[in-house]
Amino acid sequence: MEFTVGQIAEVLRGTVEGDATQPINRLAKIEEAQAGALSFLSNPKYEPYLYSTGASAVIVSRALELRQPVTAALIRVEDPYTSFTTLLEFYQQATRTGKRGVEEPAYLAASSRIGENHYRGAFSYIGENCEIGRDVVIFPHVFIGDRCKIGDGTILYAGAKVYAETVIGARCTIHAGAVLGSDGFGFAPQPDGSYRTIPQIGNVVLEDNVSIGANATIDCATMGSTIIREGAKIDNLVQIAHNVEVGRHTVIASQSGVSGSTKIGDFCVLAGQTGLAGHLTLANRTTVTAQSGVGKSIKQEGVLLQGSPAFNLRDSLRANAVFRHLPDLERRLTLLERSRTEPEKP
Amino acid sequence: MEFTVGQIAEVLRGTVEGDATQPINRLAKIEEAQAGALSFLSNPKYEPYLYSTGASAVIVSRALELRQPVTAALIRVEDPYTSFTTLLEFYQQATRTGKRGVEEPAYLAASSRIGENHYRGAFSYIGENCEIGRDVVIFPHVFIGDRCKIGDGTILYAGAKVYAETVIGARCTIHAGAVLGSDGFGFAPQPDGSYRTIPQIGNVVLEDNVSIGANATIDCATMGSTIIREGAKIDNLVQIAHNVEVGRHTVIASQSGVSGSTKIGDFCVLAGQTGLAGHLTLANRTTVTAQSGVGKSIKQEGVLLQGSPAFNLRDSLRANAVFRHLPDLERRLTLLERSRTEPEKP
Amino acid sequence: MEFTVGQIAEVLRGTVEGDATQPINRLAKIEEAQAGALSFLSNPKYEPYLYSTGASAVIVSRALELRQPVTAALIRVEDPYTSFTTLLEFYQQATRTGKRGVEEPAYLAASSRIGENHYRGAFSYIGENCEIGRDVVIFPHVFIGDRCKIGDGTILYAGAKVYAETVIGARCTIHAGAVLGSDGFGFAPQPDGSYRTIPQIGNVVLEDNVSIGANATIDCATMGSTIIREGAKIDNLVQIAHNVEVGRHTVIASQSGVSGSTKIGDFCVLAGQTGLAGHLTLANRTTVTAQSGVGKSIKQEGVLLQGSPAFNLRDSLRANAVFRHLPDLERRLTLLERSRTEPEKP
Repeated sequence: MEFTVGQIAEVLRGTVEGDATQPINRLAKIEEAQAGALSFLSNPKYEPYLYSTGASAVIVSRALELRQPVTAALIRVEDPYTSFTTLLEFYQQATRTGKRGVEEPAYLAASSRIGENHYRGAFSYIGENCEIGRDVVIFPHVFIGDRCKIGDGTILYAGAKVYAETVIGARCTIHAGAVLGSDGFGFAPQPDGSYRTIPQIGNVVLEDNVSIGANATIDCATMGSTIIREGAKIDNLVQIAHNVEVGRHTVIASQSGVSGSTKIGDFCVLAGQTGLAGHLTLANRTTVTAQSGVGKSIKQEGVLLQGSPAFNLRDSLRANAVFRHLPDLERRLTLLERSRTEPEKP
Repeated sequence: MEFTVGQIAEVLRGTVEGDATQPINRLAKIEEAQAGALSFLSNPKYEPYLYSTGASAVIVSRALELRQPVTAALIRVEDPYTSFTTLLEFYQQATRTGKRGVEEPAYLAASSRIGENHYRGAFSYIGENCEIGRDVVIFPHVFIGDRCKIGDGTILYAGAKVYAETVIGARCTIHAGAVLGSDGFGFAPQPDGSYRTIPQIGNVVLEDNVSIGANATIDCATMGSTIIREGAKIDNLVQIAHNVEVGRHTVIASQSGVSGSTKIGDFCVLAGQTGLAGHLTLANRTTVTAQSGVGKSIKQEGVLLQGSPAFNLRDSLRANAVFRHLPDLERRLTLLERSRTEPEKP
Repeated sequence: MEFTVGQIAEVLRGTVEGDATQPINRLAKIEEAQAGALSFLSNPKYEPYLYSTGASAVIVSRALELRQPVTAALIRVEDPYTSFTTLLEFYQQATRTGKRGVEEPAYLAASSRIGENHYRGAFSYIGENCEIGRDVVIFPHVFIGDRCKIGDGTILYAGAKVYAETVIGARCTIHAGAVLGSDGFGFAPQPDGSYRTIPQIGNVVLEDNVSIGANATIDCATMGSTIIREGAKIDNLVQIAHNVEVGRHTVIASQSGVSGSTKIGDFCVLAGQTGLAGHLTLANRTTVTAQSGVGKSIKQEGVLLQGSPAFNLRDSLRANAVFRHLPDLERRLTLLERSRTEPEKP
């Protein structure tokens, strides 16, 4: 793919300063860009790179005043970051998510329906009685079980596994190896110490614009639904247990785990490797820092939590600061004890 | 699927109070159930829902005495929970695990044998010289390497990966994306700081009634076998390293990791995100709480562990309680020190 | 497979003491070996097993002086451990990694090239414009996206998923279910609290001799490359985020996570379940103990870190030692306070 600076400026409704005929064949960060690359400047902190970059062109704000001469052509727009993101989207669609057509062999049960303008890669599998929207992209080795529903424009990357009866909204992204609908971990202890498996007959529901990371696992509900609400973003290797609800626009970073029946509010953030116990409720805008473990419900909105077990971030930071010099604290205590029992020196 | 209340009562050998002709088309929790649903009441705590539920019918104990009138039909049985679990099993078999037949293309090496009454989904793969029992359910994209043995009635969900020479018992459940038999993490340091890979030529053995969660990984032994004993339940995204042994009816919750050569006893419980160091022995009935890390062997049975590094649960709870007000402790200590050096006020 | 002791000695250039005609059909640890097995003795600690082992033959050092009579045949070599590892390599190649040929159906886009002497398992998929070397082993259900490059002798186990434009060096091992090139977790917060996805258009680069564990996930860079350098070993279920660099011969154990843009030096060791925050730099030979969380860059080489948040290992061990008896510490403090306010006893 190759475009001129002028062609790109036209798409972005920007104005060009410098040579509009230069060819652009890739996008790059301003500090790494070389000839042929288009970059952008949004954060003022990076402005020094503008004067030294090897990029052929840089997208900048209409308001930017140059302090030094530049060698790159400039494309001036209202919001460079948004304009650049638009180009990234074009690029990703051209190289990865814009696939269409069917590669054989692909398996589609006769009882299932799928909308037009879709891609089904070789060795993809769609079971019985599925209803799948249009513009859907299904990479090779994707498994979609019986009676699933998938909305328009959703992308399932290679080897995503969707158990029967899962419901996926529109414009969702499911990354490679993610599993939706595996059995919840439910076992009834028996008198002899063994366990009887409790069949899990519920399903998983993803609302619109949900993203699920590579090799993440979302268990189906025992009965009813495990629900991931609109716009929630779930990272690689995250575990969501049965009957959990994840609120709207909540973000869960990699390797975090949410135990059964816990309800997470809207706009929450769980950093990496966090854990939530079961049957909790987290209020909207709760933030949990990395590697923390939450064992109690949070009723107040906007709380920041840290630690395992987690409590208030500020208190946790303070306690950790003292923890580091605990041996010193003990020494001081021992000194005091000794001075108490020994006579004071004159 | 639709049955009448009377038909279901007959299967459960229960007696009906109310309209036995009502149609039932799903199972639901008593607090969420609506018309057409069958629910159950086992825990007395939920009895109030019996008088307000929208369920068409509820399974209750023969011994239950009604305190108010009910609108739902009642099916009276000895043990409502067990009866309901039986219905869940029927339901799951009808909707998911009862599949039979072969979908093409499916790969089965000519040298392998598989028993009757099985399912092999499209794009499933069975390598050379395998011996697979009857009533086995193999979903699409399952990989079974050469010389594997699989017992009767085992289910492998979509995309489960079984390396060569793995042995799986009867009535096991392997969830989507689980990997059995990947190489143990064994590397011999070389004088130049690089590593030489130690080939891992052992295998994985799962005894009967074992359950492995989605995207869990069980490494093969360096030599000999990594063994998961009868009835053990392993959750999603768990890592079991080479030469580990997991005891009978031991439960390991999601995202836990067990390092190489560690032997876990029978009837143990590892909660979520726990870690065990290598070459340990854990006695029977050891319990490890969530996010804990165990670095030492446990010889006494029935111990409860917490923390990272983990120790006795009771002591850990007490230490954590003090940890939270460490800054306060330090303040008190500083005060004492000052009062020691300053003259006491009269 | 069956060889005589003499045949094996010839391969290893060793000399036989005892019956060279005995048949050997497997390799085993000296403490577990039985008739038909070949074992080795390297660590002097295990010498007692030499006199009691059931092995038919044992590889020992030329320098070893026997203290008791042995029943097993001996194969004397310079370095028993290295000789035994060589046999393990032969064995693994014969049983698992030596596969050659193509099983149908396998998908190979016409625009892609692959070198000679390779294996492509049934249901493996290779997209457009790939360049793949010779002696490559591609197991069933492997997905290789468009425009990938893969070096000679690399092995991809069942169901490994390689997104478009990934570059993999020579002699790499990618285990089952590993995902290379999934989108980095990049989302730009919008004024209404929702997120706009930042397309991730970079790729993943693995240099030579890299090993990636089962179900591990390596995200592509936002722009540029996520890089795993020569000889690095990454275990099962590890998460490597976008734009990370892992140094040469660095080892990352199971379930560890590295956040975006962090650069790990050469010869580092991350134990299991560790976490690194984003945008850090770790000097060469940094060691992080299990379950630790690193939040700051490490500039000095050879540092050992422990804890969450992590600090110097020695200090962390000492702080943890005091932590365990915090309730006792508090009691002692309270006693002192009381004695301060009460009149001293005569």
